[in-house]
Amino acid sequence: MSKSAGCCKRFLHYAFDYETPKTLVIPSLGVGFVFRFTQFLVVMYVVGYVCVVQKAYQDTDTVISTVTTKVKGFAFTNTSDTEPRFWDVADYIIPPQGDHSFFVLTNMVVTPKQVQSRCPELPSPSTICVDDCNCVEGHSDPRGNGIQTGLCENYSTTARTCEVLSWCPLEIDTKLPEHALLAAAENFTVLIKNSITYPKFNFHRRNILPHVNSSYLKRCEFSRLTDPHCPIFRLKDIVSEAGEDFQDMAVKGGILGILIDWSCDLDWWAGECLPKYSFRRLDNKHPVNNVAPGYNFRFAKYYKTADGEETRTLIKAYGIRFDVIVFGTVPVVADWFLVTCSRKRDLYSRHKTTHLTEDADSASVRDFSPSLSLMNLISTD
Amino acid sequence: MSKSAGCCKRFLHYAFDYETPKTLVIPSLGVGFVFRFTQFLVVMYVVGYVCVVQKAYQDTDTVISTVTTKVKGFAFTNTSDTEPRFWDVADYIIPPQGDHSFFVLTNMVVTPKQVQSRCPELPSPSTICVDDCNCVEGHSDPRGNGIQTGLCENYSTTARTCEVLSWCPLEIDTKLPEHALLAAAENFTVLIKNSITYPKFNFHRRNILPHVNSSYLKRCEFSRLTDPHCPIFRLKDIVSEAGEDFQDMAVKGGILGILIDWSCDLDWWAGECLPKYSFRRLDNKHPVNNVAPGYNFRFAKYYKTADGEETRTLIKAYGIRFDVIVFGTVPVVADWFLVTCSRKRDLYSRHKTTHLTEDADSASVRDFSPSLSLMNLISTD
Amino acid sequence: MSKSAGCCKRFLHYAFDYETPKTLVIPSLGVGFVFRFTQFLVVMYVVGYVCVVQKAYQDTDTVISTVTTKVKGFAFTNTSDTEPRFWDVADYIIPPQGDHSFFVLTNMVVTPKQVQSRCPELPSPSTICVDDCNCVEGHSDPRGNGIQTGLCENYSTTARTCEVLSWCPLEIDTKLPEHALLAAAENFTVLIKNSITYPKFNFHRRNILPHVNSSYLKRCEFSRLTDPHCPIFRLKDIVSEAGEDFQDMAVKGGILGILIDWSCDLDWWAGECLPKYSFRRLDNKHPVNNVAPGYNFRFAKYYKTADGEETRTLIKAYGIRFDVIVFGTVPVVADWFLVTCSRKRDLYSRHKTTHLTEDADSASVRDFSPSLSLMNLISTD
Repeated sequence: MSKSAGCCKRFLHYAFDYETPKTLVIPSLGVGFVFRFTQFLVVMYVVGYVCVVQKAYQDTDTVISTVTTKVKGFAFTNTSDTEPRFWDVADYIIPPQGDHSFFVLTNMVVTPKQVQSRCPELPSPSTICVDDCNCVEGHSDPRGNGIQTGLCENYSTTARTCEVLSWCPLEIDTKLPEHALLAAAENFTVLIKNSITYPKFNFHRRNILPHVNSSYLKRCEFSRLTDPHCPIFRLKDIVSEAGEDFQDMAVKGGILGILIDWSCDLDWWAGECLPKYSFRRLDNKHPVNNVAPGYNFRFAKYYKTADGEETRTLIKAYGIRFDVIVFGTVPVVADWFLVTCSRKRDLYSRHKTTHLTEDADSASVRDFSPSLSLMNLISTD
Repeated sequence: MSKSAGCCKRFLHYAFDYETPKTLVIPSLGVGFVFRFTQFLVVMYVVGYVCVVQKAYQDTDTVISTVTTKVKGFAFTNTSDTEPRFWDVADYIIPPQGDHSFFVLTNMVVTPKQVQSRCPELPSPSTICVDDCNCVEGHSDPRGNGIQTGLCENYSTTARTCEVLSWCPLEIDTKLPEHALLAAAENFTVLIKNSITYPKFNFHRRNILPHVNSSYLKRCEFSRLTDPHCPIFRLKDIVSEAGEDFQDMAVKGGILGILIDWSCDLDWWAGECLPKYSFRRLDNKHPVNNVAPGYNFRFAKYYKTADGEETRTLIKAYGIRFDVIVFGTVPVVADWFLVTCSRKRDLYSRHKTTHLTEDADSASVRDFSPSLSLMNLISTD
Repeated sequence: MSKSAGCCKRFLHYAFDYETPKTLVIPSLGVGFVFRFTQFLVVMYVVGYVCVVQKAYQDTDTVISTVTTKVKGFAFTNTSDTEPRFWDVADYIIPPQGDHSFFVLTNMVVTPKQVQSRCPELPSPSTICVDDCNCVEGHSDPRGNGIQTGLCENYSTTARTCEVLSWCPLEIDTKLPEHALLAAAENFTVLIKNSITYPKFNFHRRNILPHVNSSYLKRCEFSRLTDPHCPIFRLKDIVSEAGEDFQDMAVKGGILGILIDWSCDLDWWAGECLPKYSFRRLDNKHPVNNVAPGYNFRFAKYYKTADGEETRTLIKAYGIRFDVIVFGTVPVVADWFLVTCSRKRDLYSRHKTTHLTEDADSASVRDFSPSLSLMNLISTD
């Protein structure tokens, strides 16, 4: 036969000859039982652990969230240093917008009636002076209180310090009260409204559950045992659950996390999707291995005198910043499970059998399928 | 032969004897065709579905985003209660910084000239009194308006209520206008500048596209049909697309989400990566199953009188808070595809063949490779 | 034998006959060596690349983060337009709370003593007029400065423009200084305190490392070479590392990202988990393909005159907004590795051997395990 016809025939054989492994069937109950039991263990592992426990079949999505907060409560302060004063939300919540992060003022150092002028620095190793030559005009120490003028002035009868250009009188922030001025803040309450979306699955939820009515919402207060779905929290309780004491934390301030976990299982058999609240102190309260422990910042209220001169009241505000942190992932059945099943089916389906009997050799030819005639047609020489 | 040499020989056999399954080749066109067709279906599934549709080969990353916003527009209010007043951005945008979340004031209750003093509470079941003994000194109801002094005073000719220490005169927040004061806010425009990064892939994009020029940007306005790439949005249109009416929403306020979806496919054949805008109302507008519907907060402007006494103007601000929420994932080809291909190649390459002819048994010995001599050298006994 | 007994026996055979592929053992050193070497390469790929490099065995989690910032520094401005003025943190940081995003004022246009009144618009093609009929009462151009009254007034000796109701005098924002007013801001320092949590693994970390003591923290300054763990950064250095010049950026402002990457490997052999700092300019500084380049916003300080009239100082603030962006994923060993190992073990364990000798056929029967007796019991006919 010619060469090309020979190539063609070899190619046909290569392409369409069906190659299958030979197998040996052992009719032994013991071996067969061990084999089936091993198969069962593998199936249990895939279904029971990989699918059910690990939920490896699920697709996931991360949460998009919106939060509003609203604090309520009043406080009254009356110390030897300050005039009696009433405080409401507009006075102690900064910023006022009710965002996911809000600050409650609990303690402060107030320096009223500051004006732009020159005054002697607060005494410290870097500001003490004897003569003008100890002071450098234009020098500004970031840990100081102003820009030096180059003059050395009397701070008090016992100390002379470099004069600075600044808002005078200078703030003396060591005067921080030992006990929080707004101690009543522990009884303030905060209403948290949170709505979340999982965009991949078009899934929306709110933390105010559908079955809860408005009159309940107006009077309730969150409690893990009795009112776990009430979105109104008492600040003292929040801080306690985080393992802290409100009055201790209120002196120098801190950061408290209100974590709302929306990790839910969207499989139809999984039940309702509810938020899980937890509370944690997020800043480091230990003075060792720390700088500026607690939480504080400075802000000012600006006024104009009758002559049009600008004055300000500087407030070094200490307090607790509450950060509402919303997180979660939500998984849904995908077809990974199907992929697994079909792969196994392929795996199990490639057996060609030879039954082991006393007439083994003759049986091997008998069991294979027909088309021997077709094979004869192809393989002529 | 000695025991150790026997062990050594057995170990060599174990380590280097090549064990391969025997196969049977059936030269049947029908069976061969079914076999190849099944192979083809499996390959199509892996390439077409798992790779192309599910993109299981891709690696993913989540987005890091920065947003700035800038609102423009003016409003004019003139009611019987308030003086005629002009409003610009510095007056109605809170906070002013142009962050990803900005509040547009649309309605308000203003209580000017408040000073720290004592005045009778607003009448309610818990504040009505007949005598001083009905009032408890120091008692402070968070839903009230101040701290009780213990005295019962005349609120009006018909009602007597407990006196409180507070900022007086008290706010009467039932006086909220039925129609939004700053109705003109619907025609304000907001410019949104958003730049994103996918850090794992060092991939950066901006929502102001490279081909768009500055003069177009100064005059354009977003429209899905005619100007889908203009980053300037009219507030009324945003709210409409979210399925709401601006004037309705403006009375008691609400939260509106401006969602920017940057989910893109970074495969080289995938095309440009463009942001997709959508708008959704994020708060619950229904009064049933809700507390404090809408969105509002209180803030104050502080002043000092000529005598140095502090006064304030309390504003209960209602309005729409716009939250720009940026999200997305971006996948890129990884070498998972290669891993898959090589695994399949391994799978197909372990065949050792026995051709089924009439001389089957003798052919089995003929087809195997040489080194029978080596085998003879190893297996002596 | 009856039909049902026959069915039962066939089912038993189907369920418990153990089917195993026949194999051929070739005692060839060369072939065996090639085989073992290929196995070794595959194992190396799985262990070395898939497990070690790709860490495909690991489970992942995304970070939850809290940030506080505190800026220090003073500046002094003295120009022909403005009075000499001292600036401290309360004056130039907006908002003052020390959140993850803070704005440092570097340049500004100040319009003091604005009151609600009427005044002629700034001259422009849309505001120039000749007669009252050129002006439309109530018309408000968002890019203008007020609401038109319908009158045409003298703006100056050479120009007549439409009169507007607005805060007068109007702001002239083309008067922006060419060099940043608060040039000294480049020497301000910012302390960044960041604490992160990976909730799935209950893993917490802070960027102030445990071994760093307080006295070091009070005086140090971040430097990649000498002080990579100091959390205090000089603004000029931050901006330089981002490839920008502080004074250039300070004229019209911009957005600078301080990225903190907490991607760590939690495998026990992986070492400590440290934050990696990097800095990037996030806004588009090029005027081409841009609108409103830089970063600015308007805010006002409100005052009351002795007569009780409200006045304000409008400030168009330009500056650099620093966004602290924290991100990261953390992977941990899962049991995927075990799944892989056990799958391969299954793959290797299904061999049944036939040793190739000159007595091949007789050996095949000799090597199989017992229970031939059981087989005989089952397969009677």
